[in-house]
Amino acid sequence: MTCRPLTSGISPGKQLAVIVVFLLCSGQLALAGARQSDPLPSWKNSETKTAILQFVQSVTDVQSPDYVPEPERITVFDNDGTLWPENPLPFQLAFSLDELKRRYPDEPQWKDDSFVQDAIAENLPALLANHYEGIFHLIELVASGLTTTEFADRVRSWLSTAEHPRFKLPYDQLAYQPMLEMLAYFRAHGFKTFIVSGGGADFMRVFAERVYGIPPEQVVGSNTRVIYEMRDGTPVLIKTMKDLFVDDGSGKPAGIHQFIGRRPIACFGNSDGDQAMLQYTTINNPRPSLGVIIHHTDAAREYAYDKTPKSTGKLVSALAQAPQRGWLVVDMKHDWLTVFAP
Amino acid sequence: MTCRPLTSGISPGKQLAVIVVFLLCSGQLALAGARQSDPLPSWKNSETKTAILQFVQSVTDVQSPDYVPEPERITVFDNDGTLWPENPLPFQLAFSLDELKRRYPDEPQWKDDSFVQDAIAENLPALLANHYEGIFHLIELVASGLTTTEFADRVRSWLSTAEHPRFKLPYDQLAYQPMLEMLAYFRAHGFKTFIVSGGGADFMRVFAERVYGIPPEQVVGSNTRVIYEMRDGTPVLIKTMKDLFVDDGSGKPAGIHQFIGRRPIACFGNSDGDQAMLQYTTINNPRPSLGVIIHHTDAAREYAYDKTPKSTGKLVSALAQAPQRGWLVVDMKHDWLTVFAP
Repeated sequence: MTCRPLTSGISPGKQLAVIVVFLLCSGQLALAGARQSDPLPSWKNSETKTAILQFVQSVTDVQSPDYVPEPERITVFDNDGTLWPENPLPFQLAFSLDELKRRYPDEPQWKDDSFVQDAIAENLPALLANHYEGIFHLIELVASGLTTTEFADRVRSWLSTAEHPRFKLPYDQLAYQPMLEMLAYFRAHGFKTFIVSGGGADFMRVFAERVYGIPPEQVVGSNTRVIYEMRDGTPVLIKTMKDLFVDDGSGKPAGIHQFIGRRPIACFGNSDGDQAMLQYTTINNPRPSLGVIIHHTDAAREYAYDKTPKSTGKLVSALAQAPQRGWLVVDMKHDWLTVFAP
Repeated sequence: MTCRPLTSGISPGKQLAVIVVFLLCSGQLALAGARQSDPLPSWKNSETKTAILQFVQSVTDVQSPDYVPEPERITVFDNDGTLWPENPLPFQLAFSLDELKRRYPDEPQWKDDSFVQDAIAENLPALLANHYEGIFHLIELVASGLTTTEFADRVRSWLSTAEHPRFKLPYDQLAYQPMLEMLAYFRAHGFKTFIVSGGGADFMRVFAERVYGIPPEQVVGSNTRVIYEMRDGTPVLIKTMKDLFVDDGSGKPAGIHQFIGRRPIACFGNSDGDQAMLQYTTINNPRPSLGVIIHHTDAAREYAYDKTPKSTGKLVSALAQAPQRGWLVVDMKHDWLTVFAP
């Protein structure tokens, strides 16, 4: 069907016919436009982008030998450094340090806690030592004893007042625009998008649905036990420091199994902490699979780091394995036309 | 529009018109039929059924003051005794005992295990004592050391050969027909259906999608840690006996929080082990909510028990609380026209 401009000087009946043809044509044009429009406008048209688009096309094309039925289209995204920054500190650590300082005068028992003293003295290397033992201790400490509702309220309150020291914006306005497009693109193709992060599940669930479109039940993170009780006739769940599960490194495939129960076919990460889940997603997976590493190469617009990060996010071993494993490496500086939403 | 039978003796043009009208009418009839057809045909038209239908209608009617947005329509179902029987033994215990007997000759270290001796001697009361300590020990024992894939294969193999002692059918053909209808009905109204069961998540995930239409990521159950490793170049997860989480009693609201991360608005259970999640669902929930107890009253077609169950499934305290809490009690004998699928 070809489209012609609306013509004058014809009978009313013919005019109506022309209008109908015109409307049909516009509809077709709009459809064709939607079909051809770029689902990832903040991504440069590079080989990496093409490879991601081709993967999604091939696993969702029912005629393709690589077709994967919709229920198996599980895709997992690390959070810190993959969906939003992790500098100068992972945002949950910034929250926990702010909480610690705010409450310190009212918590005399914290005075004998050496990690608390490191925190007050802003001795970050001490806190980051021993596979983040200090970080997790503080993160648990400021949550422990609160009900899950109280904890969520504190996170919400912090997000509404705290500001990122460099970008001077609320933390939850710093999601990476290219990754928001990626999440939407995968979901539009029948994928379920999950966060699988070293961050606390209860922390991320406060904003994940609003910011990323990821509902609480698709947020997998570090956690400790909660205890159920009735308090003044209302059911509450109390956060404790018991049975810490660290959803990082080899904890990520374990967390994926425990919370999702099947292997993902696509995985996005940015550090060696994501290497195990990249492996679990891509090595000898009976389904076609995709592994993507976001490499922070953009000191001007965001940060540049791999071997010697400021805080978390070391990327050495996973980067070295990438070529052999076929993992795509995104060069943030060159592959992302935009970093943050305007 | 009224529908008339196809008429003969008219002109071909009119015949065509009649055929078109007839086809339109049939379409309308089919639609009207679908609208009026009973979504719960295995449920007797009782007050209980009406109350469930009214709840679902009211929370899904955008004009209703009780309207609940789709992402918050979380509904949780206990498994043993709610979606399928738990007699004469919970099915996972039957599996574990069969596995124990099968492997006993090859596992000399089991000879010193008193719970294993109770199992071999079929001393069920000993196994059921201490909040099912013995049961969970055996369930973990036959899984421990296996990869998650090996474990799933064993469950699959058992389901394909074992037979229920009374009903003489494979265990996974014993789902309750009325509950399969209920799951489908809730899903058709935009609810996400979750299993929240004392049973092992890895056990239930083998059949939950096929039997109940519930995908692995919506199965919450008891669990222990899994350990990630590369074995002969392939990623595997090894089941261990570490950090048992018992998803029963007060563990159910804890499990719901940890795995789902928001309060359900509907809950189906059958025993005192479901009381805490019935409370968590219905007491002071800011959203409208529904609590339902399946009362086993049908010795002829299934089983009749509450105070003194044969194995698990004691129902005393939750039943006593039901009127005060507004929980609906399903009388299996009278409310269910069918128990199992034909």
